[in-house]
Amino acid sequence: MSKAYNTEIISVGTELLLGHVTNTDARDISELLSKIGINVLYHTVVGDNPQRLKQCVETAKERADIIITTGGLGPTCDDLTKQILAEAFGLELVADKAEMEGLRDFISQGRVLTENNYSQGMLPQGCTVFHNLWGTAPGCAFEAEGKTVIMMPGPPEECVPMFKTYGMPYLQKLSGEHIVSHTVNIFGMGESTVDSIFANEMNAMSNPSMAPYAKECDCLLKITAKAATVAQAEEMIAPVMEEVKTRLGEVVYGTDVDCLEEAVIKLLEEKPLSFAAAESCTGGYIAKRFTDLPGASRFFKGGMVTYTNQAKAALLGIDPALIEEKGAVSFEVARAMAENCRIILGSDVGLGVTGLAGPEGDGIHEVGTVFVSMAVEGCAYVKELHLGAYRTRSFVRRMAGNHAFDMLRRYLSGLPVRDCVTVCSPEL
Amino acid sequence: MSKAYNTEIISVGTELLLGHVTNTDARDISELLSKIGINVLYHTVVGDNPQRLKQCVETAKERADIIITTGGLGPTCDDLTKQILAEAFGLELVADKAEMEGLRDFISQGRVLTENNYSQGMLPQGCTVFHNLWGTAPGCAFEAEGKTVIMMPGPPEECVPMFKTYGMPYLQKLSGEHIVSHTVNIFGMGESTVDSIFANEMNAMSNPSMAPYAKECDCLLKITAKAATVAQAEEMIAPVMEEVKTRLGEVVYGTDVDCLEEAVIKLLEEKPLSFAAAESCTGGYIAKRFTDLPGASRFFKGGMVTYTNQAKAALLGIDPALIEEKGAVSFEVARAMAENCRIILGSDVGLGVTGLAGPEGDGIHEVGTVFVSMAVEGCAYVKELHLGAYRTRSFVRRMAGNHAFDMLRRYLSGLPVRDCVTVCSPEL
Repeated sequence: MSKAYNTEIISVGTELLLGHVTNTDARDISELLSKIGINVLYHTVVGDNPQRLKQCVETAKERADIIITTGGLGPTCDDLTKQILAEAFGLELVADKAEMEGLRDFISQGRVLTENNYSQGMLPQGCTVFHNLWGTAPGCAFEAEGKTVIMMPGPPEECVPMFKTYGMPYLQKLSGEHIVSHTVNIFGMGESTVDSIFANEMNAMSNPSMAPYAKECDCLLKITAKAATVAQAEEMIAPVMEEVKTRLGEVVYGTDVDCLEEAVIKLLEEKPLSFAAAESCTGGYIAKRFTDLPGASRFFKGGMVTYTNQAKAALLGIDPALIEEKGAVSFEVARAMAENCRIILGSDVGLGVTGLAGPEGDGIHEVGTVFVSMAVEGCAYVKELHLGAYRTRSFVRRMAGNHAFDMLRRYLSGLPVRDCVTVCSPEL
Repeated sequence: MSKAYNTEIISVGTELLLGHVTNTDARDISELLSKIGINVLYHTVVGDNPQRLKQCVETAKERADIIITTGGLGPTCDDLTKQILAEAFGLELVADKAEMEGLRDFISQGRVLTENNYSQGMLPQGCTVFHNLWGTAPGCAFEAEGKTVIMMPGPPEECVPMFKTYGMPYLQKLSGEHIVSHTVNIFGMGESTVDSIFANEMNAMSNPSMAPYAKECDCLLKITAKAATVAQAEEMIAPVMEEVKTRLGEVVYGTDVDCLEEAVIKLLEEKPLSFAAAESCTGGYIAKRFTDLPGASRFFKGGMVTYTNQAKAALLGIDPALIEEKGAVSFEVARAMAENCRIILGSDVGLGVTGLAGPEGDGIHEVGTVFVSMAVEGCAYVKELHLGAYRTRSFVRRMAGNHAFDMLRRYLSGLPVRDCVTVCSPEL
């Protein structure tokens, strides 16, 4: 087996330690590296403090072969990464002619280029410069003392495309081993149960290995193999995946997907039906989640955010008397939302959500009470959820959306839509 | 000045190193700690590997006074945090009677309690047990060798409420010093420009200190003071805040807010107008962002997600001939979206967004072309944006939303709505 190329990602920025921003760079770089068989062993976050950054770099030199930094390349006064990294490997910072020229030309949209931008053109001697097409601060890479160092800017919309464009090809040359991972995505069964079903396999297997992960509103089982080639790793994984899918059955909503809506769009690509959504407590979140996916417009006819009773009447034509009698958070209103949005937008399927996301209640239902509905030609399905009064608003909204997408997923897959009241009639 | 109580947060989980989940726990705990004057100096992420976790704990013992771990308390086979931390401080794990009883009683909603859940009831001898009301794995805290150790479960919807409920009060007793931070939130001016305006102050000042931070679609200036009391720290910050706000002027959209929509809801609380939104390329994201805020229903009448031309006609009554003639991504359609949704939903203000979020284009406009519109009684405003073809779909959608909320913010504040075409007529 080839060298391990163990990696540490050091993210520099006091804003991370103040909790002001989330370290999505480390996550995204890790995900990319796992695809090319490079192991990430540590993420470290340190502030804009030269002494502490220096110590972190010394520690990383001892325990990692590849050091990737994010942040601290920008124009502000507290940007120190290049200086410290260059120093740690005995290199000087020198002006890069092309970058200096480029900086003079660059006027980013709506922003003014200032004198302190020019410090960005100073780079470690002999490094490979990564020109930043997404911002101003260039990145770079160098090899020294048997280590590989890569520096990326901090803002995620610069860091991630730069790492894909420059960092990945740079590192791909180093790695001879391939890690391949596939996930089995599960909704409707907890991580503990999944773990318990496969406990023996997980203890016994090391390559491929298997591990369950809890996500906020669903969970997954990840199967990972290492081999000299991708094809070999794939061959090792395939029978395990099949076994897992068979044993878990219909709670498996997909493989190698990020979320239920991605599973739904894949099903729609095979069986091109359209849908629409009428949302109360999720307030556009279902529409937002689905339209996060490129190509959503082929299947998503549109949606109504009917946060108020007035909007439920104006946009969905729901009789105010029905709302008055049954309440906005009710089986009947949820059903009418799905049915009416389906008809108004002329889609094959209509989804509806009405409930209490909290933190404030309505004096009638417990916070976390949500009715999720689906209407298709001839049938309506309504599911009543009690997601727990101690849950956050964000959890309730996300989980309600997952149930809606899962109902659609089950309908598209020809599986039973479980745990709901089903009303079928030739008039629907 | 009191002892610093330097903190390191160690997050345990291979899923973090594979990039499968984001380390939001470290961010949220850091944000909470900064409010009680506890400095976070490092975040470390390490996998489910006993040897490496042990080394990270040894490093943390050397450089931190408080060690907070997240993750690795759950029931799955690879959960090791308690064992390693107890071992590092020479403690045994013992069965906690109350937790063991509790586990037997607990059947979490829709999940089955399995045998491996019971390992969760084993805790370091003499620790303070933090009962988990949001899941099954308890947390705990102990003092040993002059250090404070706190262990929290990994899932954010358990970790964050547990840290607020148990961790914060536990630590508040330790801290004698108070850090107070306030932010000035800026939209329409880049971080470099802000940095350049205040370069002298930033170099000269240490307490209070001042630092700019770039976010994905806006930026901010953070002013931080340390003092023996919160009141003293506030007094040190107040004049600096005033000076900054005066010098930056109308690009300041708020102070101590997280996002433009939060600034908007604060303005609406003072001046209770209502608004509605018609969204094409943002696909419900504006509605979702606003309804993320508790209390949104008082001001947000509702929205239409008119992703297709058919939906623009069905929900907004936009003449298909207009779309045919001008195109769905046009000044005219954007204007009609804002005007019509305002009228249909009977709101004071209507917002509209139509554009190309990418990655695919329409063969006419460059990806990133977006028209953002606002309609009020008597006037319509339309802003044409070219956000850049190299930008991600997520960036285009977020930035388009920021422009829409900024137009509303300016209208509510009586500021000019800049960089747009304004059409006023008594008929509107």
